Amino acid sequence: MKTPRIGAIGGGQLARMMTPPAIHLGIEFKVLAESEGSSAAMAASQVGDYNQLEVVAEFAKTVDVITFDHEHVPLSVLQALEAASISVQPPSRALAFAQNKLHMRQKLSEFNLPMPAWAEIKTAQQLDEFIAEQGGVAILKTPIGGYDGKGVRVVRSSSDASDWLINIDDFGGSLLAEEKVDFVRELAQLSARSVSGEFAAWPLVETQQVDGVCAVVIAPAPSASEAVLAQTADIAEIVATSLGVTGVLAVEMFEARDGRILINELAMRPHNSGHFTIEGSITSQFEQHLRAVSGLPLGSTAMQADHAVMVNLLGVDEKNTFVEHFGTAMAKHPVAKLHTYAKSARKGRKMGHVTVVADDLDFALAQAKGAAAVLLQGI
Amino acid sequence: MKTPRIGAIGGGQLARMMTPPAIHLGIEFKVLAESEGSSAAMAASQVGDYNQLEVVAEFAKTVDVITFDHEHVPLSVLQALEAASISVQPPSRALAFAQNKLHMRQKLSEFNLPMPAWAEIKTAQQLDEFIAEQGGVAILKTPIGGYDGKGVRVVRSSSDASDWLINIDDFGGSLLAEEKVDFVRELAQLSARSVSGEFAAWPLVETQQVDGVCAVVIAPAPSASEAVLAQTADIAEIVATSLGVTGVLAVEMFEARDGRILINELAMRPHNSGHFTIEGSITSQFEQHLRAVSGLPLGSTAMQADHAVMVNLLGVDEKNTFVEHFGTAMAKHPVAKLHTYAKSARKGRKMGHVTVVADDLDFALAQAKGAAAVLLQGI
Repeated sequence: MKTPRIGAIGGGQLARMMTPPAIHLGIEFKVLAESEGSSAAMAASQVGDYNQLEVVAEFAKTVDVITFDHEHVPLSVLQALEAASISVQPPSRALAFAQNKLHMRQKLSEFNLPMPAWAEIKTAQQLDEFIAEQGGVAILKTPIGGYDGKGVRVVRSSSDASDWLINIDDFGGSLLAEEKVDFVRELAQLSARSVSGEFAAWPLVETQQVDGVCAVVIAPAPSASEAVLAQTADIAEIVATSLGVTGVLAVEMFEARDGRILINELAMRPHNSGHFTIEGSITSQFEQHLRAVSGLPLGSTAMQADHAVMVNLLGVDEKNTFVEHFGTAMAKHPVAKLHTYAKSARKGRKMGHVTVVADDLDFALAQAKGAAAVLLQGI
Repeated sequence: MKTPRIGAIGGGQLARMMTPPAIHLGIEFKVLAESEGSSAAMAASQVGDYNQLEVVAEFAKTVDVITFDHEHVPLSVLQALEAASISVQPPSRALAFAQNKLHMRQKLSEFNLPMPAWAEIKTAQQLDEFIAEQGGVAILKTPIGGYDGKGVRVVRSSSDASDWLINIDDFGGSLLAEEKVDFVRELAQLSARSVSGEFAAWPLVETQQVDGVCAVVIAPAPSASEAVLAQTADIAEIVATSLGVTGVLAVEMFEARDGRILINELAMRPHNSGHFTIEGSITSQFEQHLRAVSGLPLGSTAMQADHAVMVNLLGVDEKNTFVEHFGTAMAKHPVAKLHTYAKSARKGRKMGHVTVVADDLDFALAQAKGAAAVLLQGI
């Protein structure tokens, strides 16, 4: 056996962060990037448009397994690769559910998995009826294309979504309406499933969002009951198995005020909620993803210390790339692990993150947030 | 401030392992490799002969700091770069002592640092006198070019070294004779010194050699007394400061049966005795080296867990590249961190290593040695 050659479609920070474990393991890792100078440029072996089958097929010839930095590659392209006996992990039949939130809800319903109340919406009348059932407010989502809070809005009447309803064909003919969950916090269950069927879950984490974008992750989720831990690990395994997911799977969940655990979103790739695993876990989500998609046995998901805290570095303006303040942040916070993604500065953009691993949670929180504050504000 | 662009001369495993922290920090990292397909090929921006000033000068134009994968770049080349105001870290005046063991002994003597008895040898008579003083046996070393046990031999008479004595001009006109230390174990003190003068040491480690080559590293060194820990950390700081070392410094030492701590060798770069820091320490030696040579503040050198054990993967034949047995090793040892350097197989070659980090030393030893055994023997 040789180590597999793994190719990732997409040159973002997830492909970038797959590179270090590939180097350590001695796995040949290549990236099909959208453009020169991508975040994953060091591993980029080809630049091209992932919407074009001929581009992706050319890339696929150079590797043994195709995987992903993002979930936007057209299913038709992936199905064509699969028809040519190319290993695509996760396979198109699984990715279909990550690409379409309505299909995801429909599929998960078959397995009685806990979800917010939801409905497929084709007309203003259907939406108004759902809103009425939900006590006057609902969440409306475009089934495809949304991420980081985009393609999602709170609606109290169909008139709040008249622009989407008029153009509903642009969204595949349907919108997805969901219960606006009264939650006490958000959780994420990260796991991996190998092409061989092996499954491993990391500890449940708490994710804190600001304006719909992940801001802070605390691992493990503080004060989670044994019952919740068992339920969330079960949910992840059922989702991974029933949808045929391979590689890393993130299940984002609400912990409702009434105690229900409800599935919010799925991501079939390494995920922001798992960046803490680089230093916080024996096996990082990026190494595990490489192992899982290539059929290597999975590594231990145990924590390296009692706690890990990750804070995202979101762009503050068009200038601050955070590296300006590296010296100050490093000097003040020698335990903080700084990560930047070599992206140009843009307000709100995910440009890096900071992780602190420690046996004391308050210390980890203070150090991670302190280092992030220095990088964001220079103080 | 921008992050510095760092260039390493040499495409071996040390440059390879500098790449992951450069990716995480967002530091632009380039390598001048000896050949295509080097261990550090992913970061190689140029291929050429580091003995040629014009090659190295061309490389130096593309980076802000020059550092090293190995200590073999001619001093004349480095001095020419320095004369052109290029930042070379560690500087040539420090590297001179790493390149010449006799000069190192002479320099360290000025600071009363503890060393085996030693003598500069120019003639057979001088060598026989030294051997007689040492009770009939000594270690003889070529001052330059030796590593991993090469250029070192045990001598009981000048006739054991007649080939070296006849060709003594090839070794700069002198050999280095040293006391054959009766040691209970070997130790290594890893540290880093920044271009700003900041200094940080990792915990003292025990190194176990087989046939002169590092086989196992245990961190921290078991049962080291407070006095020894204080002494070894002091030694490292005095060496780093007095020789003007920047970047990572490894001081290899003997713990003599009579209790003396004696300096054996120095390495002015990340070192095999510090590979455990990748997973075992908050800041790895490779990240710290990048920080130190570029003037960024140093990171914490605290352990991630109570113990770390590293086992080298030395080539067994011309075929086994270890990746053949990855699946078995990963399945049996899910806590083991496997590293391979993408080198072709050769008996005795350093081709990879395994690290296990744990709060239980016996567990770490068993897992690391177990995983290495699978990789070496397939069982």
